[in-house]
Amino acid sequence: MSTLRIALAQTNSTVGDLDANAVNILEWATQASMVGADVIAFGQQVLTGHPVEGLTQRTEFVEAVAQRVERLAGELDDAGLGDRVVIVGYVVPGASSSATSDVAGAAVIQGGAVVAQTGEDASGSVTVRVNDIPVSVAVSDASVPVSDTGVVIRTVAAPFVYGQPDLASSLTAEAVHAAVPVAGVNLSGAQDGIVFGGDSAIVDASGEVVAQGNPFGQELVIADVEPAATVSEAGARLSVPPRRPGGAQEAGTRPVRRDDKLGQLWDALTLGIADYADKNGFASVMLGLSGGMDSALVAVLAADAIGAHRVHTVSMPSRNSSPHSKTDAEELAGRLGTVYSVEPIQPIVDTYLTQLAVSGLAVENLQARVRGVILMTLSNQDGHLVLSPGNRSEAAVGYATLYGDMVGGYAPIADVPKTLVYELARWRNDHARQQGHTAPIPDSIIDKAPSAELAPGQVDTDSLPEYEVLDPIIAGYLDDGLSPQALVDRGHERALVERVVAMIGRGEYKRRQGAPFTRILPWAHRTNALLPITNRFR
Amino acid sequence: MSTLRIALAQTNSTVGDLDANAVNILEWATQASMVGADVIAFGQQVLTGHPVEGLTQRTEFVEAVAQRVERLAGELDDAGLGDRVVIVGYVVPGASSSATSDVAGAAVIQGGAVVAQTGEDASGSVTVRVNDIPVSVAVSDASVPVSDTGVVIRTVAAPFVYGQPDLASSLTAEAVHAAVPVAGVNLSGAQDGIVFGGDSAIVDASGEVVAQGNPFGQELVIADVEPAATVSEAGARLSVPPRRPGGAQEAGTRPVRRDDKLGQLWDALTLGIADYADKNGFASVMLGLSGGMDSALVAVLAADAIGAHRVHTVSMPSRNSSPHSKTDAEELAGRLGTVYSVEPIQPIVDTYLTQLAVSGLAVENLQARVRGVILMTLSNQDGHLVLSPGNRSEAAVGYATLYGDMVGGYAPIADVPKTLVYELARWRNDHARQQGHTAPIPDSIIDKAPSAELAPGQVDTDSLPEYEVLDPIIAGYLDDGLSPQALVDRGHERALVERVVAMIGRGEYKRRQGAPFTRILPWAHRTNALLPITNRFR
Repeated sequence: MSTLRIALAQTNSTVGDLDANAVNILEWATQASMVGADVIAFGQQVLTGHPVEGLTQRTEFVEAVAQRVERLAGELDDAGLGDRVVIVGYVVPGASSSATSDVAGAAVIQGGAVVAQTGEDASGSVTVRVNDIPVSVAVSDASVPVSDTGVVIRTVAAPFVYGQPDLASSLTAEAVHAAVPVAGVNLSGAQDGIVFGGDSAIVDASGEVVAQGNPFGQELVIADVEPAATVSEAGARLSVPPRRPGGAQEAGTRPVRRDDKLGQLWDALTLGIADYADKNGFASVMLGLSGGMDSALVAVLAADAIGAHRVHTVSMPSRNSSPHSKTDAEELAGRLGTVYSVEPIQPIVDTYLTQLAVSGLAVENLQARVRGVILMTLSNQDGHLVLSPGNRSEAAVGYATLYGDMVGGYAPIADVPKTLVYELARWRNDHARQQGHTAPIPDSIIDKAPSAELAPGQVDTDSLPEYEVLDPIIAGYLDDGLSPQALVDRGHERALVERVVAMIGRGEYKRRQGAPFTRILPWAHRTNALLPITNRFR
Repeated sequence: MSTLRIALAQTNSTVGDLDANAVNILEWATQASMVGADVIAFGQQVLTGHPVEGLTQRTEFVEAVAQRVERLAGELDDAGLGDRVVIVGYVVPGASSSATSDVAGAAVIQGGAVVAQTGEDASGSVTVRVNDIPVSVAVSDASVPVSDTGVVIRTVAAPFVYGQPDLASSLTAEAVHAAVPVAGVNLSGAQDGIVFGGDSAIVDASGEVVAQGNPFGQELVIADVEPAATVSEAGARLSVPPRRPGGAQEAGTRPVRRDDKLGQLWDALTLGIADYADKNGFASVMLGLSGGMDSALVAVLAADAIGAHRVHTVSMPSRNSSPHSKTDAEELAGRLGTVYSVEPIQPIVDTYLTQLAVSGLAVENLQARVRGVILMTLSNQDGHLVLSPGNRSEAAVGYATLYGDMVGGYAPIADVPKTLVYELARWRNDHARQQGHTAPIPDSIIDKAPSAELAPGQVDTDSLPEYEVLDPIIAGYLDDGLSPQALVDRGHERALVERVVAMIGRGEYKRRQGAPFTRILPWAHRTNALLPITNRFR
């Protein structure tokens, strides 16, 4: 029986930019053709980007997509690829039942025309013959008629989820079960906080991974497969660095170590920032540097993502700011090489307080809001994307000031629990030291007790449990969906569980007004898991 | 054949408050029993409230609901209602596929026990025999086996949508088609911006409406029906005024005129405010009064909703505020009787400007944000719910300041186009005059040209088309889903259509951070219609 050379093109599309996505498809298909690929497959909705949300409800979009895929077929032929089979994901007409499940389809292109396409729903698959081998093309986890197929190619859009198994593991299970080679091609890149996890892979019929891509970055993953379970040639990979438009420094780029979970997470978080900024046309980002851990981490992530020269950092001390906070912020900005300025807030806060007779929490929040107004005003003047520095522990329990530290167009670590914030900071410093560089984050930032510094001598543990205690309760309640009783059974103190669960419920109104954020944990990926704002269930 | 006395109990539940909802069910069931109802039916998810969103994903919630419905069966029996058939909506276990589609079920209770229940999905129905008549209980629009049924009772959760036909019209169509009496019992009340439209009705087998409730408010709708298409007794109705906890003035309460579309809309908007404030435990609301139309309308709505003594209004003039704006705001507050204060913003704005070298739009937005900070600071001090005054025309095209006029816990008119804002204002003034009262809104507020007053001499038409031109384009694009070409074909100028469509796309990032709002138009009810933020489709 014949051999089939499969090339998986793991690429980064932009939602709605049909022409640019088509150009990118042409470029990668041409590269794949040059290395002799018979079948060249792209990720789910590579032509449209994913998720397109309500765009599937708009006839002009669906029509434009249908026309663009026909044109692309002609362009592939014009480029000399008429004899190759190219699999391109897009969206097809049809009522989508939810905000995030686009109606995905895949077109099989050959000889200048669409020769086959999956059915008009997201569970579609279609089988075509290539080199006399029946090749089944399936969208996402659509079922495939096993008895009729020689090779399965899945076009997927699988988000990165921290700590979850890679794409190859599910492909392996399928290959072993069906006793055919299975390939899965994922998207790269990020869209409004969803980071696609790459990891495209080709698995032979015995379940062995014969070629595998990186979790992030655009690349070709190539292998020769035979339906009869033997692989004639080892997997090869052509790769380019992750797309970093705008002249970003590549300081954070490093070879992927598949067992380096924190390294993968770092790449996911930087990609989330870079793609949101670049795809939305921001030349620069801006954030406040408090001297604390969260804003320090966001600054390093942003510098790694788009280059320190595009990162504007502002220290905004008040009379509650500790002396070390100001020096730590300056030291951090110096090490990173970000643009740095200082805007003291006390004169402005005092002007408000001259007029308004308020005290306590209102004064605490006022300081955070003055900082928010300063950042937004500078953003309006110079076009910066404001980054909100809040972490998931705070967001979960509502320990954040709406319109204060929550202001921003993007929230890079709003799904990163505080304990993981520290792990990432230490990982990044260690990584720098291993490479012979200065650690970007001053140790004093990592070592100090977390504090919002909105009142004299304040620390987070005045209001919250220790994060080492808090984070497992939040994760159990949200990600694992455990009931309060189940959390108690797991060993957490009942009174604390009840307090945390109540805080999570009360925090919903703030989270609803939060900026889009990079989603890394299971709960954030469950679109049907939002709590009601008005909710008296206790 | 026997006659069946049906009582539809149209009631107002609070999401998650199982005990309070059960108490309310018991009270209304007892009233219905006293007038001899054989079957007493409540709206969809009356026990849990609706929508419960992610609560269906939580086992402790689903278990508590299952236990509470069993307990309720016993309580109904204890109350002497064991011989009546009581239909109670709730949620059943099962994975919900989208954020808003709860898994609704209905339990049929008799003799202290649940004697039947609809299937474990939202499309369930079940048939029971009452007085020897087969009565089919269906959730929402679930199909019913026509050949086996004598009477259909639908338990629904139908939101109010401005301009749409009432519930009775769909019931009539079904009754005529199936030649059986059909009853539909809706919820009353509001949940996080969804206002349930009441209008519960009983239609005989000939399609005649024999009893019908009001669009809003809790009440019993009662009629005797016979499967053989004749009605033995005219419809009756027991009703109570809309629930207005907290001692609200009933200034806005008036008899419903079914042809009074603006009157119905007024009631929907006031109910949206009242239920958000009361169900979330806010004793008071606060909003800025600019002297313009939007904030004036919100102030009147709020006063009608919860009583003027619970409405705190703040005038926050700047050097760009016209003299009439300040006097108009004061006059409005005086007519309404709201709490009123003045907080000039210029000293605060000037302090920012001393420090920050900004100009143009940045200074415009700064003024709006200083106002936002003042409102939030006063809210933090005294616990007010801040109301955001923006209208839908502004929200659609992004003509609003994020963290400025957009601050607030609730946005009462964010789904009301500006032209409809004016219609409502005139309707409310006319209504007051017809009742011999002073019109609440000074004519000068209605007559002046709309302006944000953030720059000298500024008017909205500096940046936007006239609202009479803009609003039909927005409605055509969003509510009707028309393509730009279809809008041009409808007679709109092409350049203007393209400009407005582009503004709508660019405004998405602001809308995502907006407060929850009362949803009245079709687009806001389509949960799958959100545009992506990152979106290059033009």
